[in-house]
Amino acid sequence: MAEESQKWVLMVTAQTPTNIAVIKYWGKRDENLILAINDSISVTLDPAHLCTTTTVAVSPAFNQDRMWLNGKEISLSGGRYQNCLREIRARANDVEDEKRGIKIVKKDWENLHVHIASYNNFPTAAGLASSAAGFACLVYSLAKLMNVQEDNGKLSAIARQGSGSACRSLYGGFVKWVMGKEENGSDSVAVQLVDEKHWDELVIIIAVVSSRQMKQVAPQMLETVETSALIDTGKGSSTKRISYEEAIQNRDFPTFAQLTCADSNQFHAVCMDTSPPIFYMNDTSHRVIGCVEKWNRSEGTPQVAYTSDAGPNAVLIARNRKAATLMLQRLLFHFPPNSDTDLNSYVIGDKSILKDAGIQDIKDVEALPPPPEIKDKVPAQKYKGEISYFICTRPGRGPVLLTDDSHALLNPETGLPK
Amino acid sequence: MAEESQKWVLMVTAQTPTNIAVIKYWGKRDENLILAINDSISVTLDPAHLCTTTTVAVSPAFNQDRMWLNGKEISLSGGRYQNCLREIRARANDVEDEKRGIKIVKKDWENLHVHIASYNNFPTAAGLASSAAGFACLVYSLAKLMNVQEDNGKLSAIARQGSGSACRSLYGGFVKWVMGKEENGSDSVAVQLVDEKHWDELVIIIAVVSSRQMKQVAPQMLETVETSALIDTGKGSSTKRISYEEAIQNRDFPTFAQLTCADSNQFHAVCMDTSPPIFYMNDTSHRVIGCVEKWNRSEGTPQVAYTSDAGPNAVLIARNRKAATLMLQRLLFHFPPNSDTDLNSYVIGDKSILKDAGIQDIKDVEALPPPPEIKDKVPAQKYKGEISYFICTRPGRGPVLLTDDSHALLNPETGLPK
Repeated sequence: MAEESQKWVLMVTAQTPTNIAVIKYWGKRDENLILAINDSISVTLDPAHLCTTTTVAVSPAFNQDRMWLNGKEISLSGGRYQNCLREIRARANDVEDEKRGIKIVKKDWENLHVHIASYNNFPTAAGLASSAAGFACLVYSLAKLMNVQEDNGKLSAIARQGSGSACRSLYGGFVKWVMGKEENGSDSVAVQLVDEKHWDELVIIIAVVSSRQMKQVAPQMLETVETSALIDTGKGSSTKRISYEEAIQNRDFPTFAQLTCADSNQFHAVCMDTSPPIFYMNDTSHRVIGCVEKWNRSEGTPQVAYTSDAGPNAVLIARNRKAATLMLQRLLFHFPPNSDTDLNSYVIGDKSILKDAGIQDIKDVEALPPPPEIKDKVPAQKYKGEISYFICTRPGRGPVLLTDDSHALLNPETGLPK
Repeated sequence: MAEESQKWVLMVTAQTPTNIAVIKYWGKRDENLILAINDSISVTLDPAHLCTTTTVAVSPAFNQDRMWLNGKEISLSGGRYQNCLREIRARANDVEDEKRGIKIVKKDWENLHVHIASYNNFPTAAGLASSAAGFACLVYSLAKLMNVQEDNGKLSAIARQGSGSACRSLYGGFVKWVMGKEENGSDSVAVQLVDEKHWDELVIIIAVVSSRQMKQVAPQMLETVETSALIDTGKGSSTKRISYEEAIQNRDFPTFAQLTCADSNQFHAVCMDTSPPIFYMNDTSHRVIGCVEKWNRSEGTPQVAYTSDAGPNAVLIARNRKAATLMLQRLLFHFPPNSDTDLNSYVIGDKSILKDAGIQDIKDVEALPPPPEIKDKVPAQKYKGEISYFICTRPGRGPVLLTDDSHALLNPETGLPK
């Protein structure tokens, strides 16, 4: 091990995507290890629009593990952080940087401390699965720093102990979190179903719902398993999962859409059937779903699938660019921005969809005609200000190392945030 | 039969209560006969606050069946009206008014026409089960006019063909609609579990939610039975029903409250699990439920049960007057009236609850302190204008004949609305 007087800092920076469950994870069979009661499936989102970047550093000069999230120091004392740090350290190997004359041997890692700086390129509290991307990135970057040899599947079982859905952010494309059977959770891992290129016509629009609602005190989902009479942890699910995976393999959008929407609705139904009931969706979520359902029915075949996680945001998956364009026109018609909102900050991510929709500025939004599927008798309703913003994105890749030092969030000299 | 030249009009006026399902009716096994897929239980509401009054008249001078609802003529051509009229006519008997020299023999009823005038003492479209009270009153008053000998249980099977829940308005107190097994629906009838005096401490507060929401196109509940994967038409329900009926018999409020709330939440969960999903409750409904849940939990034992039907209104059943008073204070704190609303029209029905709560005018509402169960850290939230009004009521009696002519809605000379 290098002398303590040596002031070297060794760093690794990685970027990890977030993911959206299309087949939900309904609850835990083990609260500490975070073992699910069912298999779940997610789509990884393009890190260009939604990702976490994490820099991890090690130095003999560090005297404790420290972490900064979005520039603010946070405590690592929670069990979930400790589980991840312990599991990664246990798998650390020798690391050598010949050029700089740094050599860390396996057993040194027990005594070396790390600094972690993490940054989300999207609002942390907006219900956009920041903890999934965050824990995946923490585990992935630490594994690279410590020369852990385990593949991403094995790493996913560690990330899972930070945040259940984090395990699915270790891969791009469509990813399945296999619930597993082992008591220690070793087989509760993520596997990639298809990569991000397999079904690249899909376009994803996230409607981030304005948070002026009463906060629900969300009980642990574990409570759901115990109190919902409707939840069914086994029956029928295996057949459903198989046809769902086939739909992804075959790019069969109607089946994919039907099962995605049904799973989301069923998840929220079960949440409502707990004691006390949990209402994650609000009126705005219901209106977005109503708008999608109406259009899908008028087209005779699904154009857009919808899903909502543990919050009011609606994630819409359009079958292709054309459908995404037509969906965005409908969304902007019903949910125009507040008059003081810049369109440029109202539709973010892949702005080319906005361009395809023929919308350049707020006047174009105001000029949008009511969708033809709205009956003439019913006056078209508008809900200004109910949506904070829309994110246009697509299926994306898994974690990557960022080798360009300019991406590092820690100072290479001090190991402190830049 | 009296000569056609005779201008007599024979009339009957009856009053029938509305009812609120505490164990919901989840769908139909026969759409035309309205046969349910499960037993349901309701509490009849005090007709002083919510009821339908119906006058039915017969005269040889009438040349067609006609009906007026709340003063406006409506068509009787619908199948549901026709079913009720046909079934009642088929059971008609001789009627004689010796004083007035009127005699109608059984077979005359086939050729005699009726006039029907019906009036609800509450807003018809406010989701307060006006069709239940309405069809019950139609059937009950026609049965009296035509000297039908069948008891209220048999009449309930006729009212059921007008509106499923109408069968439960043929009795006061707690009433069970037995789903029955017969294909013709003859055993799908209402039975009284206990009368309105059995559990007379209960106080019922109905929060009528302002209707500024997007209208849901509500599919027939029959669709639910076909498309919900969560619905379970048999399993476990018989045991649940038995303990529920015992709770009513024993005035066991904690069990009653727990099962009432669970049934309502489960009903709405199943509605959400249909394709397309049905969202009957809105954010206001969720907030009212949240307020009740929070208080119940802080008290350690349920003070108030809640239930919602196919709409956003919340029906709260308080264990006694004290609990109702404390509940009303909480409701008025969170949901104060709009500044231009008169308190007198904001809390209607049994206003003595308002008096017990120490509230005389709007200033008393404004002076209400936050409920103690609200944590100091969370600023107490207010939702002005989200509730249209509150109705305070109690369990009430079944149908009655109104013999005082001043209650009649038809002119005794002409048989036309007064």
